[in-house]
Amino acid sequence: MKTRDRILLAGLLLYNDRGVANVSNGHIADEMEISPGNLHYHFKNKRQLIEELVKNFETEISLLLNAESNQVTSIEDLWFILHIAFELQEKYCFIFRDTDFLLEKFPEFEKAVKKIAAELCRAAERLCISLRASGAIVVNDTDAQSLATQVLLTYTQWLNFRRFYNGDIDKGYIALGAFQVLALFKAFASQDTKMFLDMLSDTYHCE
Amino acid sequence: MKTRDRILLAGLLLYNDRGVANVSNGHIADEMEISPGNLHYHFKNKRQLIEELVKNFETEISLLLNAESNQVTSIEDLWFILHIAFELQEKYCFIFRDTDFLLEKFPEFEKAVKKIAAELCRAAERLCISLRASGAIVVNDTDAQSLATQVLLTYTQWLNFRRFYNGDIDKGYIALGAFQVLALFKAFASQDTKMFLDMLSDTYHCE
Repeated sequence: MKTRDRILLAGLLLYNDRGVANVSNGHIADEMEISPGNLHYHFKNKRQLIEELVKNFETEISLLLNAESNQVTSIEDLWFILHIAFELQEKYCFIFRDTDFLLEKFPEFEKAVKKIAAELCRAAERLCISLRASGAIVVNDTDAQSLATQVLLTYTQWLNFRRFYNGDIDKGYIALGAFQVLALFKAFASQDTKMFLDMLSDTYHCE
Repeated sequence: MKTRDRILLAGLLLYNDRGVANVSNGHIADEMEISPGNLHYHFKNKRQLIEELVKNFETEISLLLNAESNQVTSIEDLWFILHIAFELQEKYCFIFRDTDFLLEKFPEFEKAVKKIAAELCRAAERLCISLRASGAIVVNDTDAQSLATQVLLTYTQWLNFRRFYNGDIDKGYIALGAFQVLALFKAFASQDTKMFLDMLSDTYHCE
């Protein structure tokens, strides 16, 4: 692995673990046992490093959503894409957890965060339309818009919600999050879809 | 107004406006044009001041929820209680926005935050049960639990969501939040309830 990539990975792990506010480039160099000068050669400051990580998340989530969200024709497909999307969120959890800090300290990130939000929003809308077209759900335009907003809210805020609710991130929060998003579709589900969702309900209890 | 109450009010406004991280007791004394010693006489440190504000929110929201949530028998009642609850959230918005910072700097707040979360959770459950008992919604136990979780998530994370989505808090976010929670009930609504919700949909477009 190239030094540049190792720095990105170390930064990501430290931001996720300790919070962006508590990690300097010096901490990252220490953790990697490289000189601050070596790190500085690759990333001039904290902003540059975070910028690249945010861009990486954007690329990875876009790849997933563009490849999959048009082809979600059943609740099983949705279950699959939600799991991957929540896993990506866990991988880059600092973006979702430390949004406020990032926007306050680096106002230039607003554009990137808005781009991610818009991308996720379009994907949520496509999901609803695609599931409706396949007959997996029955929903009118107004309710589909409301459902898409709720999907977006649940995906982007699930981590903050579990922290608020439990005081900390609990194990298994990803599967619970995917299940909670899935449950939003139940009210609009066709009979087959409902059966699958009821089966899942027995497995996950979202308390 | 007593000095103590004036300090609480000034602290609340500054925390909401600038973020808890950026406001010291010195800033509050400056803003009020009183001496730091005078402030210190009432509140020995930042933690004491925040603690009292959090307790005040807890008291106000409990009063509202205990008085109202058992008596919500129609969507109009729900619309009313949601508006008041969102207004209370706006009044104490620092608690919802700066939760992470509060929990990290003052771990002793975990108990208070959990207490608020539990209170809100019970209220969300009571709302669902009360609306079901009155016939305004038709919902089984599993879906009622899922609906209550979603109500709780939407209420507690709406402010963070709008920031993530818009980069800032937009005007009118309170009414949009109340509408978004209300829309969650639509899928389970009786015919009369649906009509009322459709009417509201024409007024609010949650985009």
